[in-house]
Amino acid sequence: MIRAVVFDAYGTLFDVHSVVAACETAFPGYGTQIIQIWRQKQLEYTWLRALMGRYQDFERVTEDALKYTLNHLGLWYDEKTLKSLLSVYLHLTPFPEVPAALRVFHPRPLAILSNGTERMLQVVVHHAGLPSLFAHVLSVDLVKTYKPDPRVYELVTRTLHLQKEEILFVSSNGWDVAGAKSFGFTVAWVNRQRQTHEELGVQPDYVADDLLQLAHHVISQ
Amino acid sequence: MIRAVVFDAYGTLFDVHSVVAACETAFPGYGTQIIQIWRQKQLEYTWLRALMGRYQDFERVTEDALKYTLNHLGLWYDEKTLKSLLSVYLHLTPFPEVPAALRVFHPRPLAILSNGTERMLQVVVHHAGLPSLFAHVLSVDLVKTYKPDPRVYELVTRTLHLQKEEILFVSSNGWDVAGAKSFGFTVAWVNRQRQTHEELGVQPDYVADDLLQLAHHVISQ
Repeated sequence: MIRAVVFDAYGTLFDVHSVVAACETAFPGYGTQIIQIWRQKQLEYTWLRALMGRYQDFERVTEDALKYTLNHLGLWYDEKTLKSLLSVYLHLTPFPEVPAALRVFHPRPLAILSNGTERMLQVVVHHAGLPSLFAHVLSVDLVKTYKPDPRVYELVTRTLHLQKEEILFVSSNGWDVAGAKSFGFTVAWVNRQRQTHEELGVQPDYVADDLLQLAHHVISQ
Repeated sequence: MIRAVVFDAYGTLFDVHSVVAACETAFPGYGTQIIQIWRQKQLEYTWLRALMGRYQDFERVTEDALKYTLNHLGLWYDEKTLKSLLSVYLHLTPFPEVPAALRVFHPRPLAILSNGTERMLQVVVHHAGLPSLFAHVLSVDLVKTYKPDPRVYELVTRTLHLQKEEILFVSSNGWDVAGAKSFGFTVAWVNRQRQTHEELGVQPDYVADDLLQLAHHVISQ
């Protein structure tokens, strides 16, 4: 029995690949390469900093990952270009089916659990016109570590006062799905891009092509 | 004053890219792609499992990463192919300058600190004809977590009874360099392939093109 639904933000509700256009404008011909390396390094730095016990917030890690990416590609940049690309993270577009899917899940309490800082999350949710739909917007910044550290997922149970299995955790990131399932949530993997299953020893309870398909499937049960 | 030298194994003493030939033989035309994805996933799975608190040893993680890679590339495999590629990890070739560099560092105590299991490390060190040169071969398996968790680097200080700064930690992996420096060692980055500096907020004490250049530089000080 699902009593609440918790969503990852980046890549799940909000399309990080919409950053590609801004990168392409700033560095013509490099948009796709920049976004791929940037996203990979951004994740690596969250995992490495969490393991090293050297937490810095997601704004800083995202900036560091962008610096690495531009250095790696041998692209010259100034502070202004850096800041302008970073600001795109504040104005990401939700995937098209998101509003309809959230309405299907209603009136169950809905929440976001994300690596983003509270500022980043508040701005992006506002910009997408979604703030009234979420009962809670939870940032890892409250516990100063990153997913898939169990202390992050614990933020949800501490906030919602429900059993782990009563909470449906939804993510498009295979490693986040593994972390959430390992913690004990009921977990759905929204696999829009037919990504390869991660070999981390756990399986999601649901796999769907998009959020709306997932919402209909879960609610009909 | 450097009183002991500790080396990372894979990528630092032993060339993991020598696996490429075996992959190419098993899957003609895919050797380079397999080795790149396999290595990336192998590292990711160590970081993710350490963070999730779901340690499995490096043999298992290496096998899981290979499964992911072959699934991702849509390549069919059987158990025999899997085992034969995994066994290559036991017979990696040391980089050509390794024996000469170790002789320069002598008679300081030399050690290995690696993600590999004790079995993997003993076999590879033996196969390379180097066992008599190392006073200690330390595996993360003793603490059931992975680099860059500080508990891994602590294995060295617990074993060698020296101050952190008296120990030169040598790695070719930028993230391992950051973890070791963050822990407090004197750290050298052997950057054979002119890789991009990782933006993790710490800097190595030495950067060298290979181990022999590093050894001469450190000893001459």
